[in-house]
Amino acid sequence: MANLQKFREPVPFTSVKITDAFWAPRIAANREHGLWAVYQQLKDTGRLNAYRLDWEPGSGTPVPHVFWDSDVAKWLEGACYSLMNVPDQALLDVVEDVVDRILAAQGEDGYLNPHFTVVEPAGRWTNLRDKHELYCAGHLIEAAIAHHQATGGTRFLDGMCRYSDLICQVFGPGATQKHGYPGHEEIELALIKLYRHTGVRRYLELAAYFIDQRGQTPHYFDLEAQQRGEKSEDYWAKSHAYTQSHLPVRQQQEVVGHAVRAMYLYSGMADLAAETGDDDLLKTLQTLWGDLTSRKMYLTGGIGASRTNEGFTAGHDLPNREAYAETCAAIGLIFWAKRMLRLSLDSRYADVMERSLYNAMLSSVSLEGDRFFYVNPLASDSTHHRQAFFSCSCCPPNINRILPTIGGYIYSTGESEIDVHLYIQSQAEIDLGGQRVGLTQKTDYPWDGVVCLQVDLDQPLAFAVKLRKPGWCDEYRIFVNDQPIPVEDNLQAGYLSLDRTWQPGDRVRAQWVTTAHLVNAHPEIKANVGRVALMRGPLVYCLESLDQTQPLQHLYLPRETSLSSHFDPDVLGGVVLIQGAARVVDLSGWENTLYRKEPMQFSETSFVAIPYFAWDNREPGEMQVWMPEVIDQ
Amino acid sequence: MANLQKFREPVPFTSVKITDAFWAPRIAANREHGLWAVYQQLKDTGRLNAYRLDWEPGSGTPVPHVFWDSDVAKWLEGACYSLMNVPDQALLDVVEDVVDRILAAQGEDGYLNPHFTVVEPAGRWTNLRDKHELYCAGHLIEAAIAHHQATGGTRFLDGMCRYSDLICQVFGPGATQKHGYPGHEEIELALIKLYRHTGVRRYLELAAYFIDQRGQTPHYFDLEAQQRGEKSEDYWAKSHAYTQSHLPVRQQQEVVGHAVRAMYLYSGMADLAAETGDDDLLKTLQTLWGDLTSRKMYLTGGIGASRTNEGFTAGHDLPNREAYAETCAAIGLIFWAKRMLRLSLDSRYADVMERSLYNAMLSSVSLEGDRFFYVNPLASDSTHHRQAFFSCSCCPPNINRILPTIGGYIYSTGESEIDVHLYIQSQAEIDLGGQRVGLTQKTDYPWDGVVCLQVDLDQPLAFAVKLRKPGWCDEYRIFVNDQPIPVEDNLQAGYLSLDRTWQPGDRVRAQWVTTAHLVNAHPEIKANVGRVALMRGPLVYCLESLDQTQPLQHLYLPRETSLSSHFDPDVLGGVVLIQGAARVVDLSGWENTLYRKEPMQFSETSFVAIPYFAWDNREPGEMQVWMPEVIDQ
Repeated sequence: MANLQKFREPVPFTSVKITDAFWAPRIAANREHGLWAVYQQLKDTGRLNAYRLDWEPGSGTPVPHVFWDSDVAKWLEGACYSLMNVPDQALLDVVEDVVDRILAAQGEDGYLNPHFTVVEPAGRWTNLRDKHELYCAGHLIEAAIAHHQATGGTRFLDGMCRYSDLICQVFGPGATQKHGYPGHEEIELALIKLYRHTGVRRYLELAAYFIDQRGQTPHYFDLEAQQRGEKSEDYWAKSHAYTQSHLPVRQQQEVVGHAVRAMYLYSGMADLAAETGDDDLLKTLQTLWGDLTSRKMYLTGGIGASRTNEGFTAGHDLPNREAYAETCAAIGLIFWAKRMLRLSLDSRYADVMERSLYNAMLSSVSLEGDRFFYVNPLASDSTHHRQAFFSCSCCPPNINRILPTIGGYIYSTGESEIDVHLYIQSQAEIDLGGQRVGLTQKTDYPWDGVVCLQVDLDQPLAFAVKLRKPGWCDEYRIFVNDQPIPVEDNLQAGYLSLDRTWQPGDRVRAQWVTTAHLVNAHPEIKANVGRVALMRGPLVYCLESLDQTQPLQHLYLPRETSLSSHFDPDVLGGVVLIQGAARVVDLSGWENTLYRKEPMQFSETSFVAIPYFAWDNREPGEMQVWMPEVIDQ
Repeated sequence: MANLQKFREPVPFTSVKITDAFWAPRIAANREHGLWAVYQQLKDTGRLNAYRLDWEPGSGTPVPHVFWDSDVAKWLEGACYSLMNVPDQALLDVVEDVVDRILAAQGEDGYLNPHFTVVEPAGRWTNLRDKHELYCAGHLIEAAIAHHQATGGTRFLDGMCRYSDLICQVFGPGATQKHGYPGHEEIELALIKLYRHTGVRRYLELAAYFIDQRGQTPHYFDLEAQQRGEKSEDYWAKSHAYTQSHLPVRQQQEVVGHAVRAMYLYSGMADLAAETGDDDLLKTLQTLWGDLTSRKMYLTGGIGASRTNEGFTAGHDLPNREAYAETCAAIGLIFWAKRMLRLSLDSRYADVMERSLYNAMLSSVSLEGDRFFYVNPLASDSTHHRQAFFSCSCCPPNINRILPTIGGYIYSTGESEIDVHLYIQSQAEIDLGGQRVGLTQKTDYPWDGVVCLQVDLDQPLAFAVKLRKPGWCDEYRIFVNDQPIPVEDNLQAGYLSLDRTWQPGDRVRAQWVTTAHLVNAHPEIKANVGRVALMRGPLVYCLESLDQTQPLQHLYLPRETSLSSHFDPDVLGGVVLIQGAARVVDLSGWENTLYRKEPMQFSETSFVAIPYFAWDNREPGEMQVWMPEVIDQ
């Protein structure tokens, strides 16, 4: 183990009250519609009734699925977070009812998984590779912690500690223990969270075991398959890269396989590094981060391009219409980014976190908060729409649980420093080494880049405010109490340090100049050759056919287009639109012609672009992020 | 029935001796390598031994497949055509041996299909939709006719007439007959060919029955599925469009479904129209032709874009790397085009015929003649290569049978006219209403557009020579006996009519100016937005990475590039190369960067393009037909 380091602590969302016009309505929509819509689906699909343990063959009730617990648990976790923001007796009542149902299904030995209890009792812990038991356990642990935090009640937490204790008995290096680890990672980060919450060190130790046992030889999943009477070469996914167990994790240098699994693993590794100060693990994570963000990430922060493995393929293989870019993978990337920021204050992490939050993650939920994308393509022929639920429905409850916690991504504290990662209007109460620091943030971000921070103190206090310079921003000014601050020398790893003795009422003003601009993609991304996209601030834009006067597929953007932006309160709940000159291809002469020598002819027109996150909230139509560039000669 | 019309007659390949430097070596390679390579595969894979009828469960020998007969039959047909060009005792010996094997497997009642004879005896004629019996019968009939033509022997023809007679008994409108038709069309055109060869009218009538019964309701394939105890809605292909039986054929207006099936059906319909003068059928075919060639055809003349149905999707859906463009479909299109030309002298048909012959069809066979593409994409990441054979191996023997007959696509005759469709150096002996006309064609086509025709006559004769003006050609001159001919008024449906009393030794010279040029694709073809291709004469060009000094994926073509062409005898057996200025994208500044505001930077370079048909004949590498255009500003 390397030397223990002192890492930053995120300021919890419970200390930050979001008051802005952008996120507050989305968090409210999740509270008022999203959580209830998913709850209804959990009931209607049999996921809650599964805890009755009354399924039997021929019973006609839905077969409890191996991953159903995770859907219920993520919903519970989200509901508890929402309760921590806004008390709600009706929501609390259903939360307690769901907790009762879950606990009623727990075995004497602490085991809890309706599928294996009633459908496949002999199968317990026999197929870690495919069957999601430990994954579900992880989500239940997270839900129980959230329930304890939200309600103070301990019965759920106690139950999940009992389950965790069972898992600690079953798995580990001992001669009588199973030397396995989850096929779908998640429990690693959950166990570390449980360790932090309870102080019980064996949970941290088991997380460390799961992480470092992963990918060792002889390969546990092969041994396990042989014990099931299967040939390891018949593995449906062909390669252990699918579960990031093709190599011991510290030897991994490329993000591979199922994207959600990868993100949860790396998040757990980052948590472990934060607890142990393990430099090796941090270096591995930095390498993996570099591979992901320099080769395998959509402009939107969506990741996992391929439907085939719900995951990663080769670098720069980022098709638009066929993009998978699962919602849960974007959320997992946000989790990982937050943890990397904790290990190392570098705006590269916060830039990606912001990119995914405002684009890939946010696109996956309707403006009303109750319909969801599982798949988040960057172009659509009008057939792709949000749904209420999915048969594999990991994404909706993941949205349920991330939205109430957005406040927890804004700030972190270090020794005598407060880091500002995101610009969201809010009121925070921060404990800085025992001193109270109130931070009032006022901004119209992401529509406008002016951010005002007022420092509320009981007495003058010396510390640094470290402001993230957004990666999308080239021009900015910083003022303290209306005095401009020279910034050139203060920028370190993307953060501007304002280190001073702050007085009560001191004001910081940041002006991140926000203009719409074109973006180019790496030349190796074949899908984007000859194409440009539009961004403004952290937001990726797209064109929907219903905003255009010409068919979307006939529009080209000239490189030297002049772009204008204005806020339209009547469109999509109020968004900044980008407008500009476009060219529309002239179809005359193409009748009954597929190929010809004459070049395309264009005429002048204009386009309207909307933020990508807001697409598919009106009547169905085509959508496109990457537009062809026109040739002016 | 509409009025009978007098249609053109193609001049058979047996009357045309090909002497040019382009086709003659390819026909020879097919004769010397291609036919023998496929014969070896027919032996090695068990296709020939299947006729022993000694397969039984557990015998360990390969299970005779429902479509194996068609592979053997197409090879036989090709071998017989080759024998008609060049006698070859060794080839004749194996031909006769294969014919003996086939005939030994024929039943007392005339039935012939090893699969149904030994594997599934109860299944005869019970699954016309999926099982290829009639398709195989059609190919056997064509092979038997070719065998009779090549050898004069009648035993194979007699046998296949017996089989045809059985089919005429089993199928038809009678109360005791089956009212079905083939799921995979082919027998329609074969029966008409057999009618033409034997004069037995019931073969024509059955072909007409199959064509017009297709798609009638109640749907035969549904009834048949019910009789097998299957639900018609469980049909794996989902829609009868897959077999072009979703509607009666005269109501069809769009080419749909499996591309090879469609081409063989339309060819049969055209043959029927030629026999009956049926205007209705001709109009349907013209509509279908328009749909295919204005919306669903690759630049190469490849058709059937989708792997899923081996066939057609929506208009303008023509992906390059994922293109299916099956070899057999291109060959089927050539068959259909030749038949449309017979019905109506219009260069649109000959242009497509030429496009497919010189590009999609020709690309599917290696320069040595013994390795084949089944799938013909327009871009490759270096993983796509020709193979010796395929488990479903319809394409190699289809190549075997089309190459020896290229001479039959050059000329047709009408009343007092000779139509020249293709420019191939050759010596033809044509019977024009009882008068002998010799035509000596000299040309370096497709490398050069100068074509000299010398007319050899026993005495002066008045007739029209109708020269096809190639669709790719904008500039041309025509001379008769070195005197320029004004051509503007003589161009009708793409043919220039030289109508005069020809003297022995008269000479026609056509100069089709052949320059390399860029081609644009219809703006609705998403895969080609912002891209251009290169053509020269009838040939589509492509870039292979091994000819470039820069990575192929980094090359862009400027619109105003100056292109030069030269014949290089040392490359790919001698081809004209196209060279020109290109831009290579500058990768500096892109390290660890996926997206950026700065536009691409380019530097000057050059490119070398080869004819598409010749790709993948050297070391493996990337290939691309449609290149991105660069933006010059």
